[in-house]
Order: sequence, then structure tokens, then C-alpha cells
Amino acid sequence: MNNGKELYQSIIWQNDQLTIIDQTKLPGKEEYIDLNTAENVWEAIKQLKVRGAPAIGITGAYGLYLAVRNNETDRFDEFFEAANKAANYLNSSRPTAVNLSWALNHILDKLLENSKLPVSDLKKMILQTAIDIHDEDRQLCRQIGEHGEKLVPEGAQILTHCNTGGLATGQYGTAFSVIYHAHRQGKVKKVWVDETRPLLQGARLTTWELQKAGIPFSLNIDSAAAFLMKQGNADLVVIGADRITANGDTANKIGSYGLAVLANAHNIPFYVAAPYSTIDMNLQHGGLIDIEQRDPAEVSRFMNTPTAPEGIDVYNPAFDVVPHSLITAIITERGIIKPEYARNFKEMFSPAAIE
Amino acid sequence: MNNGKELYQSIIWQNDQLTIIDQTKLPGKEEYIDLNTAENVWEAIKQLKVRGAPAIGITGAYGLYLAVRNNETDRFDEFFEAANKAANYLNSSRPTAVNLSWALNHILDKLLENSKLPVSDLKKMILQTAIDIHDEDRQLCRQIGEHGEKLVPEGAQILTHCNTGGLATGQYGTAFSVIYHAHRQGKVKKVWVDETRPLLQGARLTTWELQKAGIPFSLNIDSAAAFLMKQGNADLVVIGADRITANGDTANKIGSYGLAVLANAHNIPFYVAAPYSTIDMNLQHGGLIDIEQRDPAEVSRFMNTPTAPEGIDVYNPAFDVVPHSLITAIITERGIIKPEYARNFKEMFSPAAIE
Repeated sequence: MNNGKELYQSIIWQNDQLTIIDQTKLPGKEEYIDLNTAENVWEAIKQLKVRGAPAIGITGAYGLYLAVRNNETDRFDEFFEAANKAANYLNSSRPTAVNLSWALNHILDKLLENSKLPVSDLKKMILQTAIDIHDEDRQLCRQIGEHGEKLVPEGAQILTHCNTGGLATGQYGTAFSVIYHAHRQGKVKKVWVDETRPLLQGARLTTWELQKAGIPFSLNIDSAAAFLMKQGNADLVVIGADRITANGDTANKIGSYGLAVLANAHNIPFYVAAPYSTIDMNLQHGGLIDIEQRDPAEVSRFMNTPTAPEGIDVYNPAFDVVPHSLITAIITERGIIKPEYARNFKEMFSPAAIE
Repeated sequence: MNNGKELYQSIIWQNDQLTIIDQTKLPGKEEYIDLNTAENVWEAIKQLKVRGAPAIGITGAYGLYLAVRNNETDRFDEFFEAANKAANYLNSSRPTAVNLSWALNHILDKLLENSKLPVSDLKKMILQTAIDIHDEDRQLCRQIGEHGEKLVPEGAQILTHCNTGGLATGQYGTAFSVIYHAHRQGKVKKVWVDETRPLLQGARLTTWELQKAGIPFSLNIDSAAAFLMKQGNADLVVIGADRITANGDTANKIGSYGLAVLANAHNIPFYVAAPYSTIDMNLQHGGLIDIEQRDPAEVSRFMNTPTAPEGIDVYNPAFDVVPHSLITAIITERGIIKPEYARNFKEMFSPAAIE
């Protein structure tokens, strides 16, 4: 049984043209915009028209190609200087986005490694590298879904938090990919979507993606998740991850920790879906992760309307940490990893385990 | 140590004049409005300028006095007909508010019992009954706080949900009264306020009340409560109650159940504070309570701005049910009730126990 047509993409490279979904218009409007210059890309990233770490990296890589494709020099040093300047410029659109600086530096490194090639070949190489980054992300997301869907029982009701879909990635997403591929197998009865305060990524984006993919769902406030579980309406929880430490502790959107405790209390499996690269073997456990506090106005205002007295104290952590003991399995593009994570990660990271 | 000045009141009867805080202007503005006629009262209730079951009952009772105080008849039947008509009218402002219909019927009953008295005395009786309803509510809220504060340790950090303060009652509130009285004893280090989606009563009203009372607090999104507990920042949770069944199961604002599970998982005491009259001995357990679904737009829109795609499915239960096994104690004006509730309620409800 196959319930799905091929899934939308938020970033499209076609006929030498970069096009993105303007995510700031969602969920009201599905508007596609062409990005023709590095300046267009910079603004799109800055204004959050494209968001999600992998999606920003991919768009930035295409942006670097757009910046230099009409450069007329045939000297490597001049060409590299232009590329380097463009990379710095693009990186300044969202300086904390690791995928963005990684993609840009990856391209610069390839240029330096190939300084003997003619500039025309270097231009082709930049474009091909951007396409490869895009394809690889799409493929790893698909693989996360293909592995993860095996964990989903027939007739499943799945609870998820925040946005982990194709909008934020090359395609398919992470936790969303698990849901999408399980749906293609006809196994998804319903998805319960946490609205995900304060920025409502669940309400604004995940619902849109589910609707677009034809997957049945209901939206709920975050604090209703517990009662859903109590009423027997959630068979599993699946979320994404910002960072996974060497023992399996997982940092993710604020609210993830509570969901894990609640899933545990109701004997519901709790899964984390993320690219293998999210696992940071240099960080021993979640207690070592700094908890970033975000702008109080995200909580005390809504679209510039105050929802609380002005100037009050707000606790607004960007994420929390789910201890590994509450995670049933971690789903990566390389397969499903079960406890004990510290040991199993080490095995996967050993040279023999690298494919 | 006494940290508190006397607490604000949301309903004031003074110099033959009814004045309320316009709750629709909070937290931005503290605006007091005079209600001079039954029509003023009807509109104030309808437009949620006054809200909270006890506060609505009190205001409605004063409203009935305003409706008939200038009535010029000296015949009981004419006077009663006018009062009855006014009561029906006032009740139509919020037909589901039990305290409102109770207060109005209570006054009508007293009129019927005293049909031999001159109309001028009946008018005084109506006013006195309204004042008594108001005073009794104020007193029972104070007693809830005085009993409950004994459960609060020195230097306590207290987590609360929704609005349970003086705005909704004659004064002091229920769970808020516990916090207020503990603060007067110098025992409150900090209050953590769940914003309480979807209607944000915590963000809009509880923060305002805490600020007004000079009690230190932070506002947090509901889904951050778990991580607060994990970080050791909550010594106890105290909430109000819509309804308590004969075995102690407690219906309250959606999100209460999850908080109770989380408190339990973190070994944090979980208290319910409510008037004794909230206990419904005719309902054996929480499973018998119908869960009302509220308007989907409360979740999918914010102040008329869509926050999710139009027309989607929304799960928006008004409340959930906390099983008695997760409740450390129930705080009433008659004292603190501990498990086993079924037995202890029965003892309290026995004729010998009634004061």
C-alpha cells in the first residue's frame, strides 16, 4: 500500500535557477520565490524565509555559486578571493548556523584543493558541490524514514513536537520522515502535533507539512499531550534532535524532556530521529550542554501584542535535554541504535563500522 | 515577617456603588469601572470584564440589587416578579456559570421565604445577601491560604498553572491564596507561572496578580515546567480545581494532569486548593466527568491571526483529570485533606463533621 505522492521540497534547483518556499508566509500561503543573487540568498536566510539548519546550509551553498557564476576573471587567486568574500558575506546572514558555515567552508576547501583547474571548471565544481550537499541531505533523510518506519506499528497514533519536516531539510526531514514513510506503508492512523510554544513551529509548519502530505492529524497545545497519552491516543512519540552526546542524552526543542518523562510514565516508546552527524562523541553527557536562553519577548508577546505585563522575568530556554534512559531508540540514516548508547555509538564510530 | 500589604479586590462594594477591575484590560491596564445598573452588570459578565466562577456569582448578586433598588412598588408579588425577571436576565449573561445561577436563586429563595416583609426591607436583604456572599467567598479563600501556607517550606519555589487568584474570587483566590499567605510568612523564594495555553490566563492574569502582590516570579511556557522540575527549581506545585470527585480525582485546566505526572516523577508534592464546595460526593471518580471540547480557534488563531492552516482538526479539551493517586493533599477552607480521600471526604461530609 502506498499512500503518498512524492513529497514537496522547500529548496529547488532547476534549469539553473534556485527557488524556495517562503516559510514566513506559511501556513497561510504557499509562495515560491526565485533567488537569483547572493544578496537574495542572504536576505532569504536573514528573514527566515528559509530556516532549519540543513536547509540553510543547502541554500547557502547554492548562494555561493550564484555569487561567483558571472565572475569574469580567469585567475585562481582573484576567483578565490571573490568566493571567500561571498562566503563571509553569506555566513553573516545567520552566523550561528553550523550547517551554513560548514557548507561554505567545505566549498572553499575544495577550491583550494583544486587551484590548478580553470575557473570555468571551478564554477561547475561549486554548483556540483551544492547539488551534492542537497542530494546527500535528501538521501539521509529518506534513509532515516526508511529505518524508522519499521518501529511504527499498524494503525499507529504518533505524537510529535516542533517541526522536523522537509521544510527544514533537503526533503523528508527527520522525525517527519519516519512519520511520512510509515504513512506510505499505510500504518499511520493519526499524528498528534504539539503546537510547540513559544514559536509555534508545530502549529505553523508541521501541520502544513502533514496536510501537504495527506497525513491525518490533529493539533494540540503542548500541555494536552499528557492527557492524550493517558487516554490511550499515542502509540509512540518521535522527535528530532539538535545534539546527541556520547551517552545518548539528547538536546532538542524545549518541551522534549517533559514529553519523554510523560511517555515513560505511560509506557509509550520515545524515539529520537536525527542524522548520524548530530551525535557529538566529544561531549560525554547532556549535563555539559549550555542551555541557551532566548528572547523573553517570544513568551511575553505574541506578534508584538503583549500577553503578559511588560518587563517581567521570563524563563525561555531554547531547548532541554532528554536523558538517554528515557529514549527507546535513536534513528539515524545508518540504522536504528538502541541502548546502551555509549557502547553502541562507539561501535558505530569505530573505523570498521564506517561504510 | 510580613511581606504583604492587604491584597487588591476585583469587586468592590463601597458607598452604595459597585466597582470592578476590567479584566479584559489586564495585564496592560489596571482600569476600574463602575457598574450602576443590571444592564452594566450583564454586559460586564458577558464581555468577560469580570470572570472566574465565584467573582461572577458575587457580581451577579450585586447586579440583582441594582436591578430592583429603585423599584417603587410596595407589593410583594410585583416586587418579586421584577426580581425574578432581573435574575433571569442576569443569568443569561453567562448561562453555564453555576455560581451565578446559584447566587441569583439563593436571593430569590430568600425573598420567597420573607414575603411578609416590607419591600424596603427586602431590598436591604438583597444587598446584605450579596455582601454576605462576597464576604463568605473572601473568608473561605483566606482560610484556604492560611491552611495551605503550612505546607510551604522556607525558601520555596512554587510552580502554578492557570489563574486562581483574587481576580476570579472575592479576594485572595484558591491556589493563589496559598502562595500569597506563604509569601506573607516570608517563605516564597519564587513562583513559576505556566503561561497556560490556550487562553494564557497564567501569562495575562497570574503574573499581574503576583506583581501586584509583590511576590517574585518568572513566566514560562507550559512545556518548560518539566525541565524546571528536573533542574531542582520547583519545591511544590499548587493548582486550583473545577471539580473534585468523591475519590479525590480532580478536574482542572488542561495541563494539570501532565503537571501532576511530572511532579510525581520528580518527587515534588502536588497540591490542589479549592473550596470545600468543589467536592462533588455524587460523582464517584474522574472517569465519569465529560471532557468538554472548546473552540478550535482558541488554538489555531491568536487574536484573530491564524497560527495554523485554516480548518484543521484541533484537540482542545477545556480541562483534564488528575487522578487522586498523584495528589499529595487537597487544601480547603476546612483544612488540609490527605489521602485516602474517599474515606476522609466521607468523614468530613458526615453530619458530625459539619461545623
